Amino acid sequence: MLVRDMQQQVDDWISQFEEGYWPPLANLARLIEEVGELARELNHHFGPKTKKPTEAEGSIAEELADCLFVLVCMANSLDIDLEAAFSEMMDKYRRRDARRWKRKPSHEPEG
Amino acid sequence: MLVRDMQQQVDDWISQFEEGYWPPLANLARLIEEVGELARELNHHFGPKTKKPTEAEGSIAEELADCLFVLVCMANSLDIDLEAAFSEMMDKYRRRDARRWKRKPSHEPEG
Amino acid sequence: MLVRDMQQQVDDWISQFEEGYWPPLANLARLIEEVGELARELNHHFGPKTKKPTEAEGSIAEELADCLFVLVCMANSLDIDLEAAFSEMMDKYRRRDARRWKRKPSHEPEG
Amino acid sequence: MLVRDMQQQVDDWISQFEEGYWPPLANLARLIEEVGELARELNHHFGPKTKKPTEAEGSIAEELADCLFVLVCMANSLDIDLEAAFSEMMDKYRRRDARRWKRKPSHEPEG
Repeated sequence: MLVRDMQQQVDDWISQFEEGYWPPLANLARLIEEVGELARELNHHFGPKTKKPTEAEGSIAEELADCLFVLVCMANSLDIDLEAAFSEMMDKYRRRDARRWKRKPSHEPEG
Repeated sequence: MLVRDMQQQVDDWISQFEEGYWPPLANLARLIEEVGELARELNHHFGPKTKKPTEAEGSIAEELADCLFVLVCMANSLDIDLEAAFSEMMDKYRRRDARRWKRKPSHEPEG
Repeated sequence: MLVRDMQQQVDDWISQFEEGYWPPLANLARLIEEVGELARELNHHFGPKTKKPTEAEGSIAEELADCLFVLVCMANSLDIDLEAAFSEMMDKYRRRDARRWKRKPSHEPEG
Repeated sequence: MLVRDMQQQVDDWISQFEEGYWPPLANLARLIEEVGELARELNHHFGPKTKKPTEAEGSIAEELADCLFVLVCMANSLDIDLEAAFSEMMDKYRRRDARRWKRKPSHEPEG
């Protein structure tokens, strides 16, 4: 699946409803809601949290995908091409952070 | 670019450093940090917030990409295939939410 | 109720359990979870979100209090006096932001 | 300082500006921004994150107070009495969670 197909699938899905995309700050609120559910799962699996018996089992992959869905909605509603934004970010990281962490011996830059 | 390539690019990037992927709760903290920067940009563009002159200009696309990067790091570090998780989520939405919002007339299900 | 009493009540509550305070990053994850629930309520009341009939009614005041509880836990576990931190913050705002927004005519500083 | 005084101090501060309180979803965005800065500090102190030399030193107490400030703004703008909300929450926890975690021997309920 192309990153572009992912954006297209979300657009096909949202476009069938009259409501359409939400305004940016409402989308952000929804992103927080989904990140909050991801936090709950992560704390359950990797933190000291004891789940209440009444809390439904969930999965980290599911919560990650829900977060991704909202990110894609936000990108679509603002006409942002995620592939282009991702590539520019990787370029920025390569320029900016290349010497920020210690490289493994086999990955030291020459010269 | 395939979703899988995106995960691979992040893995190639992280794998050159001795530090490697962060533990899940530290990755979550970093996700929050990036979502916080996205929130600042969104509030600046769509909310009542007045930026301080000393605050650097940023872009929503950049902040979205930074959030995406951390989601991909989290997925990679937990061996989660984002394409599969995304597809399962879309299937879930199609089953669960198909009648949650009002469809446009041209998209009403038959029968 | 004094801010200090609020911290004491939380400490009395937590101190009865063997588990005690959580480590900082787990507390942060929990804060995100609570902020996520607050986001859901706010979106329900002030955004375009349509609640699923199966979602329990909640209240913004309750979610705000849950966020406050986690902030107090975090402060307690790190020996932070919230009253002192709050007072220093207000002093910082008074110095830094006094001219950031437009004052009402009746609040313009003299001279 | 009373919790009520804290709400009053914030109200006195905000009331001098024409802008006044922000709408709820913009306040939420700002809360996320502040929680994001708290996350950065916590990750710096307790996680694996290496700060860039250009990043200013901050303090956890300061970031906690900034989060508290936005919570108080949100409460004030929605006419929520934080002391009452806090007390109701503690009552709820006492009823609901009393047996959720293991009590220390000295705190076991009688009978």
